[in-house]
Amino acid sequence: MADASPPLHPDIAPLAFLLGTWRGAGKGDYPTIEDFEYGEEVRFWHVGKPFLAYAQRTWDPNERRPLHAETGYWRLPGGGDRVELVLAHPSGVVEIEEGSLAGTRIELTTTTVATTTAAKSVSALRRLLDVDGDGLRYELDMAAVGVPMTHHLQASLRREPDA
Amino acid sequence: MADASPPLHPDIAPLAFLLGTWRGAGKGDYPTIEDFEYGEEVRFWHVGKPFLAYAQRTWDPNERRPLHAETGYWRLPGGGDRVELVLAHPSGVVEIEEGSLAGTRIELTTTTVATTTAAKSVSALRRLLDVDGDGLRYELDMAAVGVPMTHHLQASLRREPDA
Repeated sequence: MADASPPLHPDIAPLAFLLGTWRGAGKGDYPTIEDFEYGEEVRFWHVGKPFLAYAQRTWDPNERRPLHAETGYWRLPGGGDRVELVLAHPSGVVEIEEGSLAGTRIELTTTTVATTTAAKSVSALRRLLDVDGDGLRYELDMAAVGVPMTHHLQASLRREPDA
Repeated sequence: MADASPPLHPDIAPLAFLLGTWRGAGKGDYPTIEDFEYGEEVRFWHVGKPFLAYAQRTWDPNERRPLHAETGYWRLPGGGDRVELVLAHPSGVVEIEEGSLAGTRIELTTTTVATTTAAKSVSALRRLLDVDGDGLRYELDMAAVGVPMTHHLQASLRREPDA
């Protein structure tokens, strides 16, 4: 097994404010669907290399059934202010988002999206993520099914105390 | 939290032989680098939806430092024999692999690869994965840095007993 707690790679030190497990709730809307609410868990961790590993999942707050999930890696090449996010989605989509870091605020926009042969959905996303201490808020806009970039999700999460 | 052990979605029932945590060792070679050995952990799990979640990591068996990692989702659309794998790599690469399932043997080839602005490496992969009971063997060929599709990795993993 790899060392469980190596030092953070200096390239991603400016992203240290993301580390940990975050849980909370969000609300979704879109012109083509009914409004909905969801529970969410987001985890950021590192292994001493120049990236943060990332896994996210949401669930229906009433029935507990899983809704969305995504997983991938966050990069900050050269320790600068340009953020790169590589993502896989279980709908058969891979996606790259790029954008900027300013303090503890990150803005990202889809730059590449590709799908498997059987995948149906293709969308482009825009994310605004803002951390204040142990609080994380994000907003996500989506362009999909012929609808231009439109507000889709917003959520407020709290960082879990260290286990 | 989502239900921890929902029933397996029927579309991915033919992939149930992958479920669990696998650990073992592998060997790597390539025309442009020195031969190397690695330790590896692979996890496949599900949440009741039509995909398997997947996370993999390798490490240097001597120094314990992490080497490669990848994460994503395995799909078997309609429960047929066509396998789709969507992957994110921490090198700033997203990749789609597609191929076929025959019994407990899976062959996959890269169909799409895309990189972030700062990413350097682009490669295409071919995987052959074979499960026999609690043993998993794979071979991986790679085309990269001007070298055509060439043998790169082979490993033997064992499924861990249920926790």
